[in-house]
Amino acid sequence: MSTTPSLSSDHQASLIDGKAFATALREQIREDVRSFHGTHGVTPGLAVILVGNDPASEVYVRNKAIQTHHAGMRSFMHMLPETTTEEELLALIERLNKDPEIHGILVQLPLPNGLDARRVTNAIRPEKDVDGLGEINAGRLAIGLPGLVPCTPLGCLLLLKDQLGDMRGQHAVVIGSSNLVGKPLALLLLAEGCTVSVAHIHTRDTAALARQADILVVATGCSGLVRKDWIKPGATVIDVGITRVTLPNGKTRLVGDVVFDEAVQVAGRITPVPGGVGPMTIACLLKNTLTAAKLLVTGKAE
Amino acid sequence: MSTTPSLSSDHQASLIDGKAFATALREQIREDVRSFHGTHGVTPGLAVILVGNDPASEVYVRNKAIQTHHAGMRSFMHMLPETTTEEELLALIERLNKDPEIHGILVQLPLPNGLDARRVTNAIRPEKDVDGLGEINAGRLAIGLPGLVPCTPLGCLLLLKDQLGDMRGQHAVVIGSSNLVGKPLALLLLAEGCTVSVAHIHTRDTAALARQADILVVATGCSGLVRKDWIKPGATVIDVGITRVTLPNGKTRLVGDVVFDEAVQVAGRITPVPGGVGPMTIACLLKNTLTAAKLLVTGKAE
Repeated sequence: MSTTPSLSSDHQASLIDGKAFATALREQIREDVRSFHGTHGVTPGLAVILVGNDPASEVYVRNKAIQTHHAGMRSFMHMLPETTTEEELLALIERLNKDPEIHGILVQLPLPNGLDARRVTNAIRPEKDVDGLGEINAGRLAIGLPGLVPCTPLGCLLLLKDQLGDMRGQHAVVIGSSNLVGKPLALLLLAEGCTVSVAHIHTRDTAALARQADILVVATGCSGLVRKDWIKPGATVIDVGITRVTLPNGKTRLVGDVVFDEAVQVAGRITPVPGGVGPMTIACLLKNTLTAAKLLVTGKAE
Repeated sequence: MSTTPSLSSDHQASLIDGKAFATALREQIREDVRSFHGTHGVTPGLAVILVGNDPASEVYVRNKAIQTHHAGMRSFMHMLPETTTEEELLALIERLNKDPEIHGILVQLPLPNGLDARRVTNAIRPEKDVDGLGEINAGRLAIGLPGLVPCTPLGCLLLLKDQLGDMRGQHAVVIGSSNLVGKPLALLLLAEGCTVSVAHIHTRDTAALARQADILVVATGCSGLVRKDWIKPGATVIDVGITRVTLPNGKTRLVGDVVFDEAVQVAGRITPVPGGVGPMTIACLLKNTLTAAKLLVTGKAE
């Protein structure tokens, strides 16, 4: 690749404010929930299941429950002991699958050892699979059919569509190929008409590929992976990574997979960490719960 | 991209002989079928359903049936009139889903107008979905779980693994993003550890992306799309396209998406058309039928 024209030395990427976007999205969902209730007499309900006592998972689950409640929906928490058997968990899911007051079911991952996450995830009725991690929703996404899409990739997509509008023909490079983020986001971007490249741990020259990206999405969990020279001037950078690092003074700070202070000098637009993709995930969970309720009650998403 | 070193003027890519590979694969399947029958007393059975009188479909279906029979399996043809209703077709599929003598079910596409191909495809029990086109098999492929994979992409993958062995870190560029070939093949190559780029009708500079490919797969149906200067010297080229063109003398000839005479001067290895990917498709259908029979009878694929 020949050298690309550099931007002026005082260039600063515009910030993609995921926090503000998520707040507005939640407010919109709150209004839609009210109007849906007015029309159909139904309040969307989300059941969240936590097994065991992982402290991080407890925080996530609590935040999901509170935000669900704030959006005017019903929120049901099922906090089960570490000793829960797979049969007990599957029996609970089966009960929730049949419960007409429940429109979304989420099992917080990771599960304790001995519980098969794949089997448990697939046991959720596809219409209520608001995490979009079951085989049928994964298949519908791969084929390009409507369905429930995993929350973090959906959040990235909403930010990108808001920033860029029509993305047809843009080259999107996704670094990271997980089932939770990288692969579903690659399929979403392909459905938007992007040329899509997926890089990962085996990729030989990730920097050279990243430099071709009009849209660069980084979801690796390797803090500080993406440096200034990985970014094409003017590119839109979405940083999904979030890692807590300890500073020399002993304090801790959340950082992304992108070296923000460098990237901001080159990128056209960039999500900060925190306050970028992070807040979108729960907002998209609420969006999926409303979508699921609409599907279950009316047979169509809108 | 700077100019890449050119190969010597008498360079000729080595041919990937899909016809010979498919013949050997079918022979191997024939032996496995015999041995499977010896162990379990079960002969794999494939049901092929054709609706209407499309002449090309009639040829395909007949070839599938004959090769199934030649592989020592049971072959059942269901040729239904154009007037068949969706209810009748779904009832037949339901009967075959339950029939213990049937291990694979294939509905020849396209279906006549008025029949919903997606609904019909999804009605096939996933364990018998030997075309791998149902939502559950698509989801399992996207997630990276074992399942039944569409026949043409599986054929491409088998040829590539035979030629290249471990493909981790190789840059695979797939031109074409259909549900039948491009997308499933991209997911298969990702699972093999390739860096994967997908180009399509909206891609701005397909040639520049193609030139980066260690593995170039072309599945567009645009005959003659890929020229000499699209190919990195030494790359492995898989040409999935197959189009019948009329020559100036009035005769017809089958050609691929790659201008073979040019590509052969640059590529390291290349599939011819015909005789490359084409013969692999039915061989992989037989392979999938045997896999399905093993799964249904023993609960595991091997």
